[in-house]
Amino acid sequence: MQVVIDAMGGDTAPGPAVAGAVLSARRLGLRVALSGPTDLVQAELARHDLRGLDIEIIPAGEVIGMGELQPAEAIRSRPDNSISRGLKHLRHGGAQAFVTMGHTGAGMAAAALNLGRLHGVKRAGLAVPFPTLNGPCALIDVGANADVRPEFLQQFAIMGAVYAEKVLGIQNPRVGLITIGEERGKGSQVVQEAFPLLERAGLNFIGGVEGRDIPEGKVDVAVTDGFTGNVLIKFAEGVGALVSQILRESAKGDPFSLLGGVLMQGAFKRARAKMDYRAYGGATLLGTRGVVVIGHGRSDAEAVFTAIRVACRAAENGMVEAIGEGVARADAATRGAGAAP
Amino acid sequence: MQVVIDAMGGDTAPGPAVAGAVLSARRLGLRVALSGPTDLVQAELARHDLRGLDIEIIPAGEVIGMGELQPAEAIRSRPDNSISRGLKHLRHGGAQAFVTMGHTGAGMAAAALNLGRLHGVKRAGLAVPFPTLNGPCALIDVGANADVRPEFLQQFAIMGAVYAEKVLGIQNPRVGLITIGEERGKGSQVVQEAFPLLERAGLNFIGGVEGRDIPEGKVDVAVTDGFTGNVLIKFAEGVGALVSQILRESAKGDPFSLLGGVLMQGAFKRARAKMDYRAYGGATLLGTRGVVVIGHGRSDAEAVFTAIRVACRAAENGMVEAIGEGVARADAATRGAGAAP
Repeated sequence: MQVVIDAMGGDTAPGPAVAGAVLSARRLGLRVALSGPTDLVQAELARHDLRGLDIEIIPAGEVIGMGELQPAEAIRSRPDNSISRGLKHLRHGGAQAFVTMGHTGAGMAAAALNLGRLHGVKRAGLAVPFPTLNGPCALIDVGANADVRPEFLQQFAIMGAVYAEKVLGIQNPRVGLITIGEERGKGSQVVQEAFPLLERAGLNFIGGVEGRDIPEGKVDVAVTDGFTGNVLIKFAEGVGALVSQILRESAKGDPFSLLGGVLMQGAFKRARAKMDYRAYGGATLLGTRGVVVIGHGRSDAEAVFTAIRVACRAAENGMVEAIGEGVARADAATRGAGAAP
Repeated sequence: MQVVIDAMGGDTAPGPAVAGAVLSARRLGLRVALSGPTDLVQAELARHDLRGLDIEIIPAGEVIGMGELQPAEAIRSRPDNSISRGLKHLRHGGAQAFVTMGHTGAGMAAAALNLGRLHGVKRAGLAVPFPTLNGPCALIDVGANADVRPEFLQQFAIMGAVYAEKVLGIQNPRVGLITIGEERGKGSQVVQEAFPLLERAGLNFIGGVEGRDIPEGKVDVAVTDGFTGNVLIKFAEGVGALVSQILRESAKGDPFSLLGGVLMQGAFKRARAKMDYRAYGGATLLGTRGVVVIGHGRSDAEAVFTAIRVACRAAENGMVEAIGEGVARADAATRGAGAAP
């Protein structure tokens, strides 16, 4: 197995991307390819001990910046960029998975252009593992589709369930559709119309879930539109900082609490790591013809390593093929038994 | 000033509602009215020292349960319910504000039926104060409108700014529209269309804000649709429990952290209180002809007192009138100077 990594993705590229690639080559005995300007990648590789490692460079002349405001346009007009070069290497069978810590919008646009969607998939969706009281839950979509139709939500559910099984290792995952209120007829129009579609999708669909059900771990797959999902994961990032600050302020002027805070440093650090969805390896793009993992721009080498491990697992466990089959099965069921193919 | 309180609202009514009403009569020198079955309310009042207090009972024969699945239908078919009776007392000028800890959907439906919307208001919106690094931020809408049009978001912004000023005491509040991504053209269709409307609304509009900007306190008013807003506040409720649990687990087996945790009990308790949006007095319905505050069903007497204080402040500071003026002003500006009325 080879994984191709965008050497130029991330806030401080190519350092963490290259270091993470080297780590995974060493720890997992993985073959890795790094896409980027050859001289830059070579210079960065020279800082590492590469003995016994199988590392290839995929030349790319252009870099898409993290602050790019027109990512789709940038990908189209600069085809020699490191993301597209890496994805082309994947498409041509050189590698079995692609990982970038680069611009999320650029990664999605490049995947659409260079890989395309699986047959029958209406929209690709971005899934992340989200920490809950019962271990990680797959949240999909977290930003690929700000506006959705009910049938997109059905496919997100199918793809999210495959992801939960193949990547998070959850058998027969419980799938919930994010909605509001317990009353009949509550929720947005699109969510109300999606309910019967999810019921018919052959999933372990447990129904609607409210915001609080996600951290409480009531479901293994939480399905929503890319607007709500994106607001949620960004909000969760900000809440972590808020909790730390409020705890600090609440301890002020109370010597017991201040001493307690010092003693609890280790626990705080471990808790922060558990709450950090970045530690789970970033977002996986579901529905494209190939494994694409997009990590956080702030990832360090360990976070890049985690993202690469996620990509490996998805490739080894046949996630892409399973998504294709799941979508086809649901399509057939929707058309009804005995209908023309 | 008299405030009318739904004696039968809340998970364990009438206890906390009546106790909170008595507290506010005592502490604020407020006149209060309690709507509910006379015998039940009298029996509950008998448990308190009422000397010197001005407390009226507004008879109501019916109660809308917290689990009511068809609240609008229940309000229509049982007009003698305690919410509607209280609102009618408000409408007839007996009181200047209404407070319930009852069913949110029923409260909104009863307000629509018994008070109606202010002239020019397209949809009433629910606002809550949300804790941030810089003090509370007004989040609107948190559940009244699952589906919105751009002009609803504009009015939520106007009403939310009045609420932030009159109830939260924030002068010239910074208003942000919740969206996703920093790229041009990102965000849902409705949000993209709302941007120019908010820019023209005569507000201190700072533009789009992402999920993480809310807890970080970048805005004083965060505007969104009722679906996203509701998912966010419910999610925040659940995250609190998740953080506590993860901290407990992270301290396990580490004697320093365990001791630290014991010493920090006081700080944890204070932090939880600060994070609990219920402590801020519940949700205020904006855009109706009268002050309506809907608190959390789990509120204790102190939380009911806080909700009543919020309602008082809104009434004293002329929140309803200011909303009417703000909406009319924006309407006039939108129609353009010199246009026919």
